[in-house]
Order: sequence, then C-alpha cells, then structure tokens
Amino acid sequence: MSNLLEKLNWRYATKKMDASKVVPEEKVERILEAIRLSASSSGLQPYEVIVVKNKALREQIVPHAWNQQQLVDGSHLLVFAAWDNYTEERINHMFDLVNEERGFTNEGWEAYRQKLLAAYPPRPAQENFEHAARQAYIGLGTALIAAAEEGVDSTPMEGFEPEKVDEILGLKEKGLRSVVILPLGYRADEGDWLVNLKKVRRPQEQFIQVID
Amino acid sequence: MSNLLEKLNWRYATKKMDASKVVPEEKVERILEAIRLSASSSGLQPYEVIVVKNKALREQIVPHAWNQQQLVDGSHLLVFAAWDNYTEERINHMFDLVNEERGFTNEGWEAYRQKLLAAYPPRPAQENFEHAARQAYIGLGTALIAAAEEGVDSTPMEGFEPEKVDEILGLKEKGLRSVVILPLGYRADEGDWLVNLKKVRRPQEQFIQVID
Repeated sequence: MSNLLEKLNWRYATKKMDASKVVPEEKVERILEAIRLSASSSGLQPYEVIVVKNKALREQIVPHAWNQQQLVDGSHLLVFAAWDNYTEERINHMFDLVNEERGFTNEGWEAYRQKLLAAYPPRPAQENFEHAARQAYIGLGTALIAAAEEGVDSTPMEGFEPEKVDEILGLKEKGLRSVVILPLGYRADEGDWLVNLKKVRRPQEQFIQVID
Repeated sequence: MSNLLEKLNWRYATKKMDASKVVPEEKVERILEAIRLSASSSGLQPYEVIVVKNKALREQIVPHAWNQQQLVDGSHLLVFAAWDNYTEERINHMFDLVNEERGFTNEGWEAYRQKLLAAYPPRPAQENFEHAARQAYIGLGTALIAAAEEGVDSTPMEGFEPEKVDEILGLKEKGLRSVVILPLGYRADEGDWLVNLKKVRRPQEQFIQVID
C-alpha cells in the first residue's frame, strides 16, 4: 500500500477533538501551501481560504453549524470561500499575474484570456459561483490529504448556514461565499463515536467502470 | 519541503502526452483506489469514475473536447460522472451498505438517514446534481495527487461537451452526468508549451486570510 493510500485510510471526519491540543503553525502553513498549489480551472483559483484562529469567532459559528464542537475544540478553522462571481477584474488580475511571473505575454494565452472574458462575466452569477465552488472542492481534497500527511485531524463540514458564516467573517463585502469549512485539530482520546468504526466505501465494481 | 508539496509542484496540466507510453495498470489501480477512499458529503460518494481505455471511444470524444490530443495520447481517460439526482434508492443503498459493513445499526445513524431522505430527494435535481458534482471534485483533487505520487501525468479538463460525452459513454441511462475528465499518461519530450513555464499561483496574502 502506498503512503497516500495509508494516509487516506488514516483520516476520517473526526467527531470529537481534544480541546487541549493546538496544531503547530508550521503544519498549518504546509496544509495551506498545499491548497494554494492545487489545480483550478484555467488556473483562476476562484476562492480564498480564511483561517480562523480567533476562538470567539469560532464560537459564534457553532450554533449555525449544528453545534458541532470540533469548531472550537480544534485549534484552526479553514473556511473555503468561493468567488460569488467571475468578474473582468478577477480574470484580468490572474492573467496579468501569470504574465508578470513568467516575464512575457503570448498570443495564445491572451486569446484565452479574451475567451474567458467573453464567456464568464456575462453568465449568471450563480452559475459562476457554482463553478468556483467546485474548484474550492479540489482545494478541499488536497487539504484533507495534506492534513493527514501532517498527522493532523480534520472534519470537512457542509452542515452550516453559509449566510451566517459569511456575515460573521465579513465575506459578502469581499465578494466571497463560504462553501465548506474544515476544523483542524487532534482526535480526542474518548468520545468520538466514529473513530473506531470501519471506513465504508462502495466496492470498486459499484464505483468504477472500466471500458476496455 | 514535504513530499506532498513536491508532488504538487511537479504536477501540471500536461499539454502534450507521449502516445507511445502506457500507464501500468497497477498505477491506475492505486489512483482509482485513492479516489474511492476520498471523503464525500455524508459518505454518499455521489459519483462514479469511468475508466476509458478503449481508444475508439476516446477518439470520439476528442472533437467534443476542443480537439485536445491528450485524450488519445494518454493511455487512460478518467471520467468523473456525478449522480444526476439524489434518490431514495441511492441514499438507502449507501446507508444499508454502511450497516452491513459495520455489522450493526444505530439510532443516530438511522435518524441521519431519515434526515437526508427528507431533505435531498424533494430538492430540484439540478441542485442535487451540483452538490454531487462538488463531491466529485474532492475525488479529482485526490486523483491529481495520486497520479503525481505515481509519477503519472494528467490533465484535468472541463473544456468538453458533457452531453456528448454522456452520450458516447451511455451515462445518461445510468443517471450520471460527466463533470470533469482526466487523461492519464506521460508528458512528451517535445511539444508541450506549458511544461517549462513557471507554475503561477496567487501569493499567500491574496489567497489566505488569517483571523487571529
């Protein structure tokens, strides 16, 4: 079994975190860097990650997230917040950054910019948001592996009121909408109903179809 | 730098694959197993992965995917196909499987099943599909890392006509809709405009916000 498969088997959606333990900053940094390096459609990275260390803010989120205590028992909360829309400014910013970093422009790349500028901003904001949200989930997939690689537990959560979280963190003004949140911490020694239960996935024949 | 960050830096959306090289089956198996082990909302795994080895079928997809030749120059094409809707049958299947694998039922879990049965099937199919699609992107995030861990190149693609791919692969009848496709193969020695260009991501301060 490869290292990655081991990590994927080790991780689980932790139900009870040890409130006395803090994830070291260098581990959080590497997890964030992994998310930052993740792929996204056209390289636009149409989301941001908010790292909430402030406990008072995390406490405010709890009642809007089914009272899940990992939000406060963990030491860091990652909030994946997707762009609420694709705007010309956002698209141009990314293309300009690429040109700047690579030190040149080229025709194909500029034609591609025009293609996106013609296609995305005119679409309904909700359609663009849904597209951006998907990209954030690539980052989430990376984060779950990155945390496991660091021996850090995490709990991906969709069970929260996005509007409330957006309000508490001031995301709306930034043109962001929270899509999934991820407390980071360490599993408690006791009180986690899931930790010793078998990880269940559909067997390969129900999940994978090979066309030879 | 950790192993994971190295792998994330190594990978890129390969633009030209070497048509003479074939990814060994054991590598493909480990990539698929990593996807299968990925997290998903409520553990429903609301998607399937179709592995298209058949070259004639991949050739049929090419004109509906901006003529991207990686589809045929790679040796395997992974198609991530999300459930078109959440049905009672699909939800019950997963909860039943979990009970079977764990060898017991419990009240909390059964209450959660009822909660999902009450919430998901009545929602519009499109809303459920969008939710399912997001979960498939967690799998995609895993797949990109798993491929890199195997030294296998890949090209995540959204630039294709989903309805055509669904038709070519007979997905609609199975209640599936393709959302993202991923050729696997090996980068060609020549002809890839992207391979030597710097990977560009927004700097941390534009992508990550820490609230202390």
